[in-house]
Amino acid sequence: MDIYDNVCPMDYRYGPREPEYRKKILKYLSGRARIQYQLKVQAALVRFMAKKGLCPEKCSREIEKAFLGLEPADVYREEQRIHHDVKAAVNLAMADVGLGCKRYVNMIATSFDIINTAEVLRYSEFARDVLIPDLLEFEKTLIRIARKEKNTPQMGRTHGRHIAPTTFGFTLSEYVSRIGNCTMMIMSAANDLRGKLSGALGDYKQLSMFIENPEEFEREFLGTIGLKPATHSTQITEPEYVLNLMHSVMACYGVLANLADDMRKLSQSEIDEINENIAAEQVAGTSIPHKRNPVRFENIKSLWKAFMPRMMTLYMDQISEQQRDLTNSASSRFTAEALTAFICSLNRMNRCMGAMVINRDKMKRNMKMSQDLMLTQPLFVLLNAANHPNPDEYVKRMLKNARRQGKSLRELVFGDREFEQYSAKLTERQRRMLDNSRLIGIPAKKTESVCSYWEQVLHLD
Amino acid sequence: MDIYDNVCPMDYRYGPREPEYRKKILKYLSGRARIQYQLKVQAALVRFMAKKGLCPEKCSREIEKAFLGLEPADVYREEQRIHHDVKAAVNLAMADVGLGCKRYVNMIATSFDIINTAEVLRYSEFARDVLIPDLLEFEKTLIRIARKEKNTPQMGRTHGRHIAPTTFGFTLSEYVSRIGNCTMMIMSAANDLRGKLSGALGDYKQLSMFIENPEEFEREFLGTIGLKPATHSTQITEPEYVLNLMHSVMACYGVLANLADDMRKLSQSEIDEINENIAAEQVAGTSIPHKRNPVRFENIKSLWKAFMPRMMTLYMDQISEQQRDLTNSASSRFTAEALTAFICSLNRMNRCMGAMVINRDKMKRNMKMSQDLMLTQPLFVLLNAANHPNPDEYVKRMLKNARRQGKSLRELVFGDREFEQYSAKLTERQRRMLDNSRLIGIPAKKTESVCSYWEQVLHLD
Amino acid sequence: MDIYDNVCPMDYRYGPREPEYRKKILKYLSGRARIQYQLKVQAALVRFMAKKGLCPEKCSREIEKAFLGLEPADVYREEQRIHHDVKAAVNLAMADVGLGCKRYVNMIATSFDIINTAEVLRYSEFARDVLIPDLLEFEKTLIRIARKEKNTPQMGRTHGRHIAPTTFGFTLSEYVSRIGNCTMMIMSAANDLRGKLSGALGDYKQLSMFIENPEEFEREFLGTIGLKPATHSTQITEPEYVLNLMHSVMACYGVLANLADDMRKLSQSEIDEINENIAAEQVAGTSIPHKRNPVRFENIKSLWKAFMPRMMTLYMDQISEQQRDLTNSASSRFTAEALTAFICSLNRMNRCMGAMVINRDKMKRNMKMSQDLMLTQPLFVLLNAANHPNPDEYVKRMLKNARRQGKSLRELVFGDREFEQYSAKLTERQRRMLDNSRLIGIPAKKTESVCSYWEQVLHLD
Amino acid sequence: MDIYDNVCPMDYRYGPREPEYRKKILKYLSGRARIQYQLKVQAALVRFMAKKGLCPEKCSREIEKAFLGLEPADVYREEQRIHHDVKAAVNLAMADVGLGCKRYVNMIATSFDIINTAEVLRYSEFARDVLIPDLLEFEKTLIRIARKEKNTPQMGRTHGRHIAPTTFGFTLSEYVSRIGNCTMMIMSAANDLRGKLSGALGDYKQLSMFIENPEEFEREFLGTIGLKPATHSTQITEPEYVLNLMHSVMACYGVLANLADDMRKLSQSEIDEINENIAAEQVAGTSIPHKRNPVRFENIKSLWKAFMPRMMTLYMDQISEQQRDLTNSASSRFTAEALTAFICSLNRMNRCMGAMVINRDKMKRNMKMSQDLMLTQPLFVLLNAANHPNPDEYVKRMLKNARRQGKSLRELVFGDREFEQYSAKLTERQRRMLDNSRLIGIPAKKTESVCSYWEQVLHLD
Repeated sequence: MDIYDNVCPMDYRYGPREPEYRKKILKYLSGRARIQYQLKVQAALVRFMAKKGLCPEKCSREIEKAFLGLEPADVYREEQRIHHDVKAAVNLAMADVGLGCKRYVNMIATSFDIINTAEVLRYSEFARDVLIPDLLEFEKTLIRIARKEKNTPQMGRTHGRHIAPTTFGFTLSEYVSRIGNCTMMIMSAANDLRGKLSGALGDYKQLSMFIENPEEFEREFLGTIGLKPATHSTQITEPEYVLNLMHSVMACYGVLANLADDMRKLSQSEIDEINENIAAEQVAGTSIPHKRNPVRFENIKSLWKAFMPRMMTLYMDQISEQQRDLTNSASSRFTAEALTAFICSLNRMNRCMGAMVINRDKMKRNMKMSQDLMLTQPLFVLLNAANHPNPDEYVKRMLKNARRQGKSLRELVFGDREFEQYSAKLTERQRRMLDNSRLIGIPAKKTESVCSYWEQVLHLD
Repeated sequence: MDIYDNVCPMDYRYGPREPEYRKKILKYLSGRARIQYQLKVQAALVRFMAKKGLCPEKCSREIEKAFLGLEPADVYREEQRIHHDVKAAVNLAMADVGLGCKRYVNMIATSFDIINTAEVLRYSEFARDVLIPDLLEFEKTLIRIARKEKNTPQMGRTHGRHIAPTTFGFTLSEYVSRIGNCTMMIMSAANDLRGKLSGALGDYKQLSMFIENPEEFEREFLGTIGLKPATHSTQITEPEYVLNLMHSVMACYGVLANLADDMRKLSQSEIDEINENIAAEQVAGTSIPHKRNPVRFENIKSLWKAFMPRMMTLYMDQISEQQRDLTNSASSRFTAEALTAFICSLNRMNRCMGAMVINRDKMKRNMKMSQDLMLTQPLFVLLNAANHPNPDEYVKRMLKNARRQGKSLRELVFGDREFEQYSAKLTERQRRMLDNSRLIGIPAKKTESVCSYWEQVLHLD
Repeated sequence: MDIYDNVCPMDYRYGPREPEYRKKILKYLSGRARIQYQLKVQAALVRFMAKKGLCPEKCSREIEKAFLGLEPADVYREEQRIHHDVKAAVNLAMADVGLGCKRYVNMIATSFDIINTAEVLRYSEFARDVLIPDLLEFEKTLIRIARKEKNTPQMGRTHGRHIAPTTFGFTLSEYVSRIGNCTMMIMSAANDLRGKLSGALGDYKQLSMFIENPEEFEREFLGTIGLKPATHSTQITEPEYVLNLMHSVMACYGVLANLADDMRKLSQSEIDEINENIAAEQVAGTSIPHKRNPVRFENIKSLWKAFMPRMMTLYMDQISEQQRDLTNSASSRFTAEALTAFICSLNRMNRCMGAMVINRDKMKRNMKMSQDLMLTQPLFVLLNAANHPNPDEYVKRMLKNARRQGKSLRELVFGDREFEQYSAKLTERQRRMLDNSRLIGIPAKKTESVCSYWEQVLHLD
Repeated sequence: MDIYDNVCPMDYRYGPREPEYRKKILKYLSGRARIQYQLKVQAALVRFMAKKGLCPEKCSREIEKAFLGLEPADVYREEQRIHHDVKAAVNLAMADVGLGCKRYVNMIATSFDIINTAEVLRYSEFARDVLIPDLLEFEKTLIRIARKEKNTPQMGRTHGRHIAPTTFGFTLSEYVSRIGNCTMMIMSAANDLRGKLSGALGDYKQLSMFIENPEEFEREFLGTIGLKPATHSTQITEPEYVLNLMHSVMACYGVLANLADDMRKLSQSEIDEINENIAAEQVAGTSIPHKRNPVRFENIKSLWKAFMPRMMTLYMDQISEQQRDLTNSASSRFTAEALTAFICSLNRMNRCMGAMVINRDKMKRNMKMSQDLMLTQPLFVLLNAANHPNPDEYVKRMLKNARRQGKSLRELVFGDREFEQYSAKLTERQRRMLDNSRLIGIPAKKTESVCSYWEQVLHLD
């Protein structure tokens, strides 16, 4: 089929494109991967049965080979006939093993033991092999830029309005910290995914027909594939484990969206402090080919808007009637798509941040616009500390005078007798704080402390 | 590529499968269709330019042919180079036309004139050719069954508990009405989609370079492809038109989900009033192959949970900065996927309802469970009407006595002197209302009135 | 109780504050109003019963007086005892009427006939008396400013970057149009709200005990209070009617949020084209008292974020099992709060827009930043029209030269021989388009056309 | 004011009602509490300043007293004048302290140091004092009932259809486990809430004017009120901490909603296995007063639908421009309302579960309906284990025969020669598994293991 015959833009447009990377992602997240992981779990189970004496070694090897040799497309074809995916694989595998071994193909597990376990296994391996390494890579990129720019003066802004000087490195250190934090959350949720081998109702009735201690058997088996059992399951595992993983991923997506917005804002024409590094061939439109737009940052924000609301689906899917209904079946299959969207946005952001053009000169010029403002906050704070009865009124008065006389606030204040009187009460350190260049040192220090902290916590070297 | 290499289950699983139907849907909703509709709009535009004397007939024919001859996959390839889809098609088309015609290829429209117009055009034609016909088909199915079952006694239930007798046809007539209503909403929203030809900012600067009255030109051009212009546009059309279409579609999806839930509930083991018609080959699970589950109804509910939250994306996409940012670009491309999900669920529901097994006998038996209850409401209402001082207390007392004496309420009441005294004050009509079989006639009549009303309004014959 | 003992900020903070206006809103949307409207419907029903001969005039008057004389607080108290609000009012009313009239107090309606009808009645009257008048008022404000500023030059921006000149009036005309559109949607949805008098299951069994044609009776009764019946109801009316009203309100809230965002962006320090008119006493913070922040625009965006997701609740509430479950009961009571939030944001926006400070001078200066850009789009379009083989390359080349030589693009182009050669092929009209001041006239004209259109459609004079 | 003059039903209807409990909740979550916690933080800060030598002991005591003596209503009044809450409290406190102390009232913190810290402090204390104790209480209730019912036979159901026998205690143990899990999540998120004292931009510029090591100072100060600092903050703390708390609360709300749905389903007329314990005075409706509906379970589901979507608000509020915009200000104030809704639903659920009527007899009768089914799963599993070539076909054949002959499957199978042949290959243990009464023991054991596990993990005794 042609890729453009798809309806979902994750498949024909926003998914991974570079062939090697595409292969790496699809290994965990495609429709094919879904089946492959089920086969993997089936194989692991029969291996474990042999280890525990529930199945002859010879049969175990035969069945394992049969499962691992199946083509997902064949499984899907058989499924279309009998309307059940696990049973489809069982049918095909059974056809491939000798008569004496057939009974072991599908002896102790119910379908959802396989399906649920396979799902969390692929998410868990995806997290281990792709998601977390990529997050750490991105964190390194952020730390590298934040450190490099820790002394680059930039205007701080709240409500979109200048407030006081800071540094571009400090601005970025916010994201060093938030991405660090989210990485920890994702690690913790991914490590807490749970499988099951507890049967059709979760009460081990099937398993109990073959062994004494089914809870121990379940724990041991899941251990062989790196998972833990849920403390309870019905036909399905408790939904909160995957919900938590997706919450932590979506929280991280929100941080990416915020960073993308911040970078977009900094590249507005009037601000113009950073720019996307735009390829020579890229055009902005048919009638305005020369314009340069932050389309990659916009794309990240846009995909966040497309995927964030899907948390609602996951919250709704917490509700499953009695020992389970199937109304979470179709909806839960979109989880892999959401992970794909996130990983692609993460990598795009990593590339964008690494390549962006920083306009340090414009940062300085923007700061210059608000020179008076840069003085007002320390002035206010220190006059108050020096016991000025109404620092607020004083600052406002001097600002008005400055404007009226066409002078800078600094000029006016430093020659003002009222100011001198209070200034005398300040410590040497405090007086130094009225000097802008000194002020930059404080955010630089915090930037360094944030970067070092996360390097250490996340073992980045 | 292999279909199972996709990550989105709409593409590898829940999308249209039957080849003819698949072709019919993808014609409007695939990634390929997106480009094809842009080419269609470009062709229509150059045709209109010729009509208006802005382009020689000969060039118009040449350019039209060039656009309509392009392969979407080629356009996507060129887009990957220059990062702009409309410009990509323009480049390719330009290469295919003679030197003297090149300037007309991209003369009066900005990219989003093409993109926005093409999007609403495909949604609008999809609505006209597929969505509305399928809705009308489904409405006919519902009306057919509702009419057929209008006299089939069924217990009415509120809060999941029996309340009073009604008929299965009446139960279904709720959906005749709600689907009818939603069809009207969708028709109205689909007929109100708006294109644009107003240039990069929406103020017709580009068009004004060539003609006197650009608003009239825009209206006429859009008329040639069956669309109206937005009353205002920036670089993009006002988002509320597509938002309304998707709201009406999602509202209709909610009605499908409710119907699916109701049918699921009626097929619970204890209730067992209807059943999905299940294929002979279908299995329920690997360890319980003989069980029959309402998996199709569950699937519809599940996809509703996956797609309904996407309304949040559309509401968020109403916000676009100034004359537009691009943060609605990626997200808006998922709209076609949501339409695909809906149309597939609609058709699945149509098949399920048409084929479902109705267990009229069990409906009767369930009603029998609550025979006393069936009398209580009319008894209460009529005693009150007959001026009984405390009908509530009387009904409760008689119920208790009936239970104590192991008799039916009817038996007890009709022999009760207190009742007779009030019964005498009732009209003949009212006394008849105490007879269950009469009660059934009232919902049957309403069922008929609902079915006729919608047949007439929707011109179903 | 103290207002600050509330937990919901709509009640203790963001609701209407000015006493007269507060009274006007709460009359429809408070907890008290909920009960008052139920009493109003009960009174109307008994009046209608008398008219139709189902109840003696004398009793009708007595009962009407009893219902309308009840204190909501007393109804709530009785409800706490018996856990049912309609029955609570019935009990209290019954105690107030003579023995011979008691039976008419609660003779033909089921609880939800009253509750549902009362809900839509208050929403409908709220829309008629407050919502729509306030929307029209806001539309007038927008039109007034758009007209006044239709010739005020302002830079057009896409992706946050300058693109081409337009006017501030044109920028605002986007909102004239979108608010106009939303007003139409709200009017239409509010006029389509539906009541019911169809009994416990929607099949008129109760009503049928007293009259021949219950559907006609229902239609006539609802007509007396300005409502229409649903084409079908169960115990409750079809949820789609209120859903549509809330969708149209939320769509309009999204437009407000977009406008608020646009105004916020225009008041960023570097752009500084508009400012909130800030009260003299207002402070920005404890350590930066002199800063001026667009807090009202931010507040509107923030409340939109708080209320928009509640559409999810309404979509979920479409699903009610069988003839209804009660899981939409608590959730639906939050609808009145959402309407309160919207009306307060609408009025705040109206005040903010009316009072905002427009910095026309800064608009001009920002435009000046991009003088070259202003020429590029018409240049590109016209060179193409004049058959220049590669207008894109020409514009880029000239821009580069201009930058290198420190000249303006205009200066360079108008003295360039290559340009002259193509310029000669342009019409007089087209040549004029290269003059910026002319370009402003086009958006001004569209602004006027948008304002006039909506004035006419909405009958504003 | 009258409580019914509120628009939000949490305030006039669903909030805590019993006066003592109401006081307990409002202490943390009302509008008043919001201000009280800000005053509490201000007081703690000045105390800490004195400890660190930044403020004379005498002044510290005076200021502390001034802050703690303020009436929230007065603060709100002053805020209405100056439009800033922290500054309002500062103004009032300043008026109450001596001239020499005034400068210490507002010396080292910016407004959001106070606001953010106060918010997390009240959520944190609410979690510690109310939320977690109530969750543990509920967990005890669930464990008590699950244990008591661990041997009560109940039919297991998937897709709403009978599948195999289990016990009612096992059914409930699902919730023991999920509530246990959610309690752990909430504990962990509540313990990870972070305050700040890092100034207007998060870079400690204000604090640096007074002390050498502001990060240490911040950590120590927050430690005195039981909080930790964020690893980074801008004007506000990183939003992910509160987001995580609310996610864990909403996840737990989802579990409550699922439990409520399950209990509702079990109380449907045909199933009728449990019932809400309904007060004698409660009525179901005006025309059907005797009906008994699960309205409390429905209420919990309904409030979940009202509050769950608010997670969208929190995810959107992750995005704050640059060093912060204020668009999360209004929206974040609704967090306290969501916590109120949750705690009220939790307590209602605790009461409902404690009081519900369990109809063990009906459980048995429902199970009897599916006696054949109870045998099919073990039969299938064991025949397969015994190497039967087609157990599926055998079971289906015997089921058909049983139906045809009007016999039970058990009767038929145990006298069947084919069965005997395979039965001989089973172990003693396996043969016993074909006995229903034995099957019950397995879920009972798992129930006990789940209850014990959570008792131990949560230290319940």
